[in-house]
Amino acid sequence: MASVNPHYKKLKMSYLFQEIEKRSLLARAKNPDLLNFGIGDVTLPLAKPIVDAMCKAVQELGEKNTHRGYGPGGGYSFLREKIAKHDFSDQISPDEIFISNSAKSDSANIQELFHPDNIVALADPTYPVYIDSTVLAGRSRTANEDGTYEGVTYLSCTEENDFVPPLPSDIVDVIYLCSPNNPTGVALTRDALEKWVEYAQKNKAIILFDAAYEAFISSDAPHSIYEIKGAKEVAIEFRSFSKKAGFTSLGCAYTVVPKDLHIPLHSLWKRRVSTKFNGVPYPIQRGAEAVYSSEGREALKNQIAQYRKQTKLLRDGLQNLGYTLFGGIDAPYIWCKTPNEMKSWEFFDYLLENAGIICTPGSGFGPSGEGFVRFSAFASESAIIQALKRLEALCVSR
Amino acid sequence: MASVNPHYKKLKMSYLFQEIEKRSLLARAKNPDLLNFGIGDVTLPLAKPIVDAMCKAVQELGEKNTHRGYGPGGGYSFLREKIAKHDFSDQISPDEIFISNSAKSDSANIQELFHPDNIVALADPTYPVYIDSTVLAGRSRTANEDGTYEGVTYLSCTEENDFVPPLPSDIVDVIYLCSPNNPTGVALTRDALEKWVEYAQKNKAIILFDAAYEAFISSDAPHSIYEIKGAKEVAIEFRSFSKKAGFTSLGCAYTVVPKDLHIPLHSLWKRRVSTKFNGVPYPIQRGAEAVYSSEGREALKNQIAQYRKQTKLLRDGLQNLGYTLFGGIDAPYIWCKTPNEMKSWEFFDYLLENAGIICTPGSGFGPSGEGFVRFSAFASESAIIQALKRLEALCVSR
Repeated sequence: MASVNPHYKKLKMSYLFQEIEKRSLLARAKNPDLLNFGIGDVTLPLAKPIVDAMCKAVQELGEKNTHRGYGPGGGYSFLREKIAKHDFSDQISPDEIFISNSAKSDSANIQELFHPDNIVALADPTYPVYIDSTVLAGRSRTANEDGTYEGVTYLSCTEENDFVPPLPSDIVDVIYLCSPNNPTGVALTRDALEKWVEYAQKNKAIILFDAAYEAFISSDAPHSIYEIKGAKEVAIEFRSFSKKAGFTSLGCAYTVVPKDLHIPLHSLWKRRVSTKFNGVPYPIQRGAEAVYSSEGREALKNQIAQYRKQTKLLRDGLQNLGYTLFGGIDAPYIWCKTPNEMKSWEFFDYLLENAGIICTPGSGFGPSGEGFVRFSAFASESAIIQALKRLEALCVSR
Repeated sequence: MASVNPHYKKLKMSYLFQEIEKRSLLARAKNPDLLNFGIGDVTLPLAKPIVDAMCKAVQELGEKNTHRGYGPGGGYSFLREKIAKHDFSDQISPDEIFISNSAKSDSANIQELFHPDNIVALADPTYPVYIDSTVLAGRSRTANEDGTYEGVTYLSCTEENDFVPPLPSDIVDVIYLCSPNNPTGVALTRDALEKWVEYAQKNKAIILFDAAYEAFISSDAPHSIYEIKGAKEVAIEFRSFSKKAGFTSLGCAYTVVPKDLHIPLHSLWKRRVSTKFNGVPYPIQRGAEAVYSSEGREALKNQIAQYRKQTKLLRDGLQNLGYTLFGGIDAPYIWCKTPNEMKSWEFFDYLLENAGIICTPGSGFGPSGEGFVRFSAFASESAIIQALKRLEALCVSR
């Protein structure tokens, strides 16, 4: 008799963004003019050099002499070489780079490589996929009232520690670090990262470093964990074209698995990719390649500048209205303390009902996110201006 | 201390097609004029209606008013509705269809949904991904000398049983059936499928039905397992655009998970998709949609006819040379008995060295594949003609 994976039953809550969508849909019935600062999704159109490269690639597939079939599962070398050169100054070898369809998938699927007994640590709050995939992989015990799980180490990021995940007091094996962190928008400094690499070296742990938002860093925080000495022995890094190049409708990311890691994860990941994956579509890889052309880089510099400008506009506006804010410097995410000690979902519902504004409840990212909401500044400039007006009116009426 | 998943260590052999590539690369150094009948990969260019739809979609993404971000993880309804209508006469609901990047990934990832103690059965020989992912999921014990694994039930397909997987004598929980089967090219008849559905009903098992090659069926074998009464309670079906529409460079497939299954796999798969997957690229889904337009259907009818013509050419040619053949009627795969009781890899090396022909050793698909090789008729017509000439010369010289 077939039966289901018991770990799937442990995951009680619905996926955060599905719950937001559900409530937003209900609200939209009453107020069609909702402003979305919820899910972090790009709003600027795909840059022309990327569009052109993709169209050309699609046309190639329709011609007898340039048609292609299956590509290499880990990605074409034309793309892996560009990444090695431009993103890592050739300090990472192209065959340590695996092209994938999303950093989300990879940061979840990587769990397969580890021994079932390995203990996972993760920042709190952070991107929900880490904890959800940890639970699905059977690396947690029972769920607690506050949404945490026994058997997982939570690294509480609060105002007191400047939202920097503290080293754990117990020994852990696998550590998810996201920098700049989603949702707080805070990037780890060189100093903080050095401490983590040192911890991993000492305890023979592996750091799963999610750098999906590195392109938005404007401080001097490292863009890659490999800027830290010794990181190649203890860290895997996830990157994505989603936010950096507007690829959320396309799906292209990559994972760096160094050959120098202290356990043979490079060969295991290679094995997983060849067994379970057929590679990213050829036209998408050509689009990603165009990200590194001089025209592509120029276009994306402008795109990032626009998102930064929007983030500043939203951040300054919220600040002027008296909100207590964090993040928004190294990432397009603003971490906003709820007023009057409201709970996250309470403030979410309040903004949705009274201002038609969608944000993301901080508690959805972990218990230390309670009392905060995340604003994504990917929304359009006009939406930001409108939202600030509505919030001002709310403040006056309050 | 982080450590690796012990199940990964059980998988001793390298992935079949990588081994073939390695030997072919070596041979190519001596003879650059190799003819490839190995990996099943399409050779005709992408049909024009698909190219046009994809280009249009890419252009849309570059425009302010038609730009899109994240799509639904399980696929756009414009595609799911077309599939439900054209492939299942609306007997399957669009929300039972999950769009994915490959049937390979899905047929491997589906294992996550089942209890670790569930026993897997699979045809022997069959597509290697089923056994590899079974081993990686920890559903096997030690490996035997012949490449099989303890704890897995092999359904031996031989000349004696017309290559139809026999019902197991022991009770199994999860059964992989591939029809038309890769590599034998043999499609299961309605009668055989009815017996399997009956078995699954009686034992509360789940059938994982891989119909990736259904478009090539020319006999009256069912194209879908849902043509069999009661199958919705016991079967998941995998389909792919790879071979049917020439999408191997693109990656688009779908998995049908009925809500009527006797265990709640529909909600579990939905959960997995929302947690670990971000969906198939928008332009690829528009390309897949074009498969169902009248122009698309016309173009693909011609494409399939061409592949059928090639398969017949190769099959007739090999038969005339005295080879003992199976398959090649319902799939572009010809299952060829090795002459003189040669082992599969022995015949593979013989053809590679003496005729510059790449095939796939049958033993790579399971122990019952020993003594056979698979010829893929996706190769071009001119390659087939040339190969037959070379084989004829070999016969004469032998």
